[in-house]
Amino acid sequence: MADMQTFFARAAAMLGPKGFTQDPDVIEPWLTDWRGRYTGRALALASPGSTRDVAKLVQLCGEFGVPIVPQGGNTGMCGGATPDDTGSAILLSLRRMDAIRSLDPDARQVVCEAGVILQTLHEAAAAEGLRFPLTLGGKGSATIGGLISTNAGGTQVLRHGTMRAQVLGIEAVMPDGNVFEGLVPLKKDNRGFDLKQLLIGSEGTLGIITAASLQLQPAIGGRRVLWIGLKSIQQARQLLLHAQSSVGDALEGFEVVPRHSLEAVLDYLPEARDPLQNSHPWYALVELVATAGMGDALDARAEGLLEGAYHDGLLEDATIAANETQAEELWLLRDSIAPAERAIGPAMQHDISVPVAKMADFVELVSPEMERRFPGTRAVAFGHLGDGNVHFHILAPDNAIRGEWEENEGKAISAVVHDLVTEWGGSISAEHGIGQMKRDELARLGHPASLAMMRSVKQALDPQGLFNPGKLVPLARESTSP
Amino acid sequence: MADMQTFFARAAAMLGPKGFTQDPDVIEPWLTDWRGRYTGRALALASPGSTRDVAKLVQLCGEFGVPIVPQGGNTGMCGGATPDDTGSAILLSLRRMDAIRSLDPDARQVVCEAGVILQTLHEAAAAEGLRFPLTLGGKGSATIGGLISTNAGGTQVLRHGTMRAQVLGIEAVMPDGNVFEGLVPLKKDNRGFDLKQLLIGSEGTLGIITAASLQLQPAIGGRRVLWIGLKSIQQARQLLLHAQSSVGDALEGFEVVPRHSLEAVLDYLPEARDPLQNSHPWYALVELVATAGMGDALDARAEGLLEGAYHDGLLEDATIAANETQAEELWLLRDSIAPAERAIGPAMQHDISVPVAKMADFVELVSPEMERRFPGTRAVAFGHLGDGNVHFHILAPDNAIRGEWEENEGKAISAVVHDLVTEWGGSISAEHGIGQMKRDELARLGHPASLAMMRSVKQALDPQGLFNPGKLVPLARESTSP
Repeated sequence: MADMQTFFARAAAMLGPKGFTQDPDVIEPWLTDWRGRYTGRALALASPGSTRDVAKLVQLCGEFGVPIVPQGGNTGMCGGATPDDTGSAILLSLRRMDAIRSLDPDARQVVCEAGVILQTLHEAAAAEGLRFPLTLGGKGSATIGGLISTNAGGTQVLRHGTMRAQVLGIEAVMPDGNVFEGLVPLKKDNRGFDLKQLLIGSEGTLGIITAASLQLQPAIGGRRVLWIGLKSIQQARQLLLHAQSSVGDALEGFEVVPRHSLEAVLDYLPEARDPLQNSHPWYALVELVATAGMGDALDARAEGLLEGAYHDGLLEDATIAANETQAEELWLLRDSIAPAERAIGPAMQHDISVPVAKMADFVELVSPEMERRFPGTRAVAFGHLGDGNVHFHILAPDNAIRGEWEENEGKAISAVVHDLVTEWGGSISAEHGIGQMKRDELARLGHPASLAMMRSVKQALDPQGLFNPGKLVPLARESTSP
Repeated sequence: MADMQTFFARAAAMLGPKGFTQDPDVIEPWLTDWRGRYTGRALALASPGSTRDVAKLVQLCGEFGVPIVPQGGNTGMCGGATPDDTGSAILLSLRRMDAIRSLDPDARQVVCEAGVILQTLHEAAAAEGLRFPLTLGGKGSATIGGLISTNAGGTQVLRHGTMRAQVLGIEAVMPDGNVFEGLVPLKKDNRGFDLKQLLIGSEGTLGIITAASLQLQPAIGGRRVLWIGLKSIQQARQLLLHAQSSVGDALEGFEVVPRHSLEAVLDYLPEARDPLQNSHPWYALVELVATAGMGDALDARAEGLLEGAYHDGLLEDATIAANETQAEELWLLRDSIAPAERAIGPAMQHDISVPVAKMADFVELVSPEMERRFPGTRAVAFGHLGDGNVHFHILAPDNAIRGEWEENEGKAISAVVHDLVTEWGGSISAEHGIGQMKRDELARLGHPASLAMMRSVKQALDPQGLFNPGKLVPLARESTSP
């Protein structure tokens, strides 16, 4: 314990009062993930203000064998930024490192520190006539560092890819305290292994991202949002193919919503209304965008898309948002599905992907299978059909007791969903990551060669195992105490 | 030696006569890289016909401690596929694994074995109304496995990215003989570290790529090729910015050529002619493409680009190829620079990149500096300005003796170029890789944290050091004998 007092004293002296605290009241809000699923404990909260201070802290932690749990906006979906309950780790917040170091409008590049909030980046880009084409529900809290560490997705992946595709370079502190200096944005760089790619999506287990160079895109010249009634998810698949070949370069988003989810949202949002007159089993929310100066052609493209699809029997009914307010209303229907369904009752939520071409089949075949195997449940799939990624929720039977059901039948349900996704060649984590939530499922279902590689790389780069322990990497079975 | 006889007998029995030979005459052509810079020796040539056979061979090599040098089309630029001269390794050719396993036109995806030749893939895609948007000079020999292992570039990177950006999934045999099964193309997959990205560009030092899933693109609806006379490379940079903002989504290529290189090509190709009436210090070769069905708008876009640029003082003169024959003639001028300059005399060639925004400054400042420091030489830069990547050649003085000059003054020149590129935050290998040619320069100039990570990862995944030894990874300084 004397040892730890030395550690605390040195950390406090190093980081100053703004950068280091052991005050439980200050630390407490950050010990539970935002959805309230995981709560842990921590020795202290470190909030360094510079890359140099992160590096010094990492060196100090290495010296004293203190584990580090890095945290950004605490908006993760899998408990990846929540410490475990041993209380042996420090929580390392990157939120103070929130500077936009530079923004080059000509090159359309920005260098952000890890703690920059996504919304702030959106605004900084917009001020220069540019945009950062990744967005998600937590944009008011989610940080660039967290988004990179989890390779976040969202509703613009169809056209722009995940966070990985926006990253030109990163700066990160490695477990040995050295700084990986990869910020300079080189469009081409074949100097050996692409270590940047290894760090992206590694959830803080290999390095702590302190800054990133990101690619910005030109501001759009307008958008059209379409809400389309469909008779089946197979029809949605056909419509997607049609849209890709007819307006592919303008297709920004393609989301699917089942009738059940729309009804849940209509119940949940008092002012929401059904965009179409009649009821349809499925809906597609489609967004088309135009490059600057080409906005005038959008109406013709949107109408042409709908006319062609209607002619080919690929839709039942459709509406085009007449203005931005209506466009936002349509997106609000989509974005409210998760809270609307939470309001109904407990559900097991699965963020899964299969090859894009197979997703309609998966939903059509696996949904009734799940409902048959777990009587009283309802399978609901919605989301990013264009990415082969749906959020596949199994809603509890009416009589289920919240808290109890998830721990018992719920876990069995998730295991079956993960089994089936794996059989279909898919992923048990499409965009949310592994964190602590799916670590054991990854160990159970991951391919042995991949698991072996991950363990080897983790062991090689973090031999003390101090970076975000217990997250992501399913370490080889071993005794729990050293 | 008895031991090795057992190895040979087991390998021959495993792979059969088509798959294994020790015949020096058969092996000899593959022991020298295509440019004749490196020659090595090998115990045998293995040419397995399946992933399973590659895995079995790797296991056998592991058992006997035999190093493996993988080789595709033998078109690499840095000696990465040429064994060293100890003769202790086997050469592992992937050329027999040349099946296109599947091609899904709807999903625009193809699964190729490692030995598929790039030209063959181009033709297979074209037959389905699609295209594979990566091409380079060696397309008639270069294989998909080699292109992935070196993260190849080419002239379409501006719009489509390097080989890495085309790869959806890979299958690879790891040093322990296990097969990394990552072929299923998932648009989103956050199951831990992105091992696929780690293997891409690792030049066979971490795994042997046996197959890949690749993204295809829709066939184009037409192209226009423009040849533009410029007064400086700074003007080329301004023209690039102008083109990106005015026709960005159509801009497929933007290459720069200095007058010296054009003259060399005009001397080298008897039938070539200067596309413009007057001489200009610099040229840009610009290609615009249209999506299918949109080809009619191309003339207007090309003319609009030139008119806008002329109005803004961003060009001196220009011509648009009137047909495909003329378009090919313009590209031939660009593609003949390297052989034309080789015909003049010896040169040190550098495949370098700096941030795109800095490349014009780099060429303008560093070229005279090199000519000043090495009197009689001439610095010539040409290529992918839009990617921040030029081929920076230093031509020998008139009296230089081929062979001798490269070994002496040439090496000193390259060291200075690499120093300067590193000072500018750039890369000593933009698209050609490291291989054996640049390994020591990477060790000299690589950032310590990056080098340490590479060594750790290499050691973790290939603890016996049998995969392509002596290539890419600058291992820590150690005695040369074990």
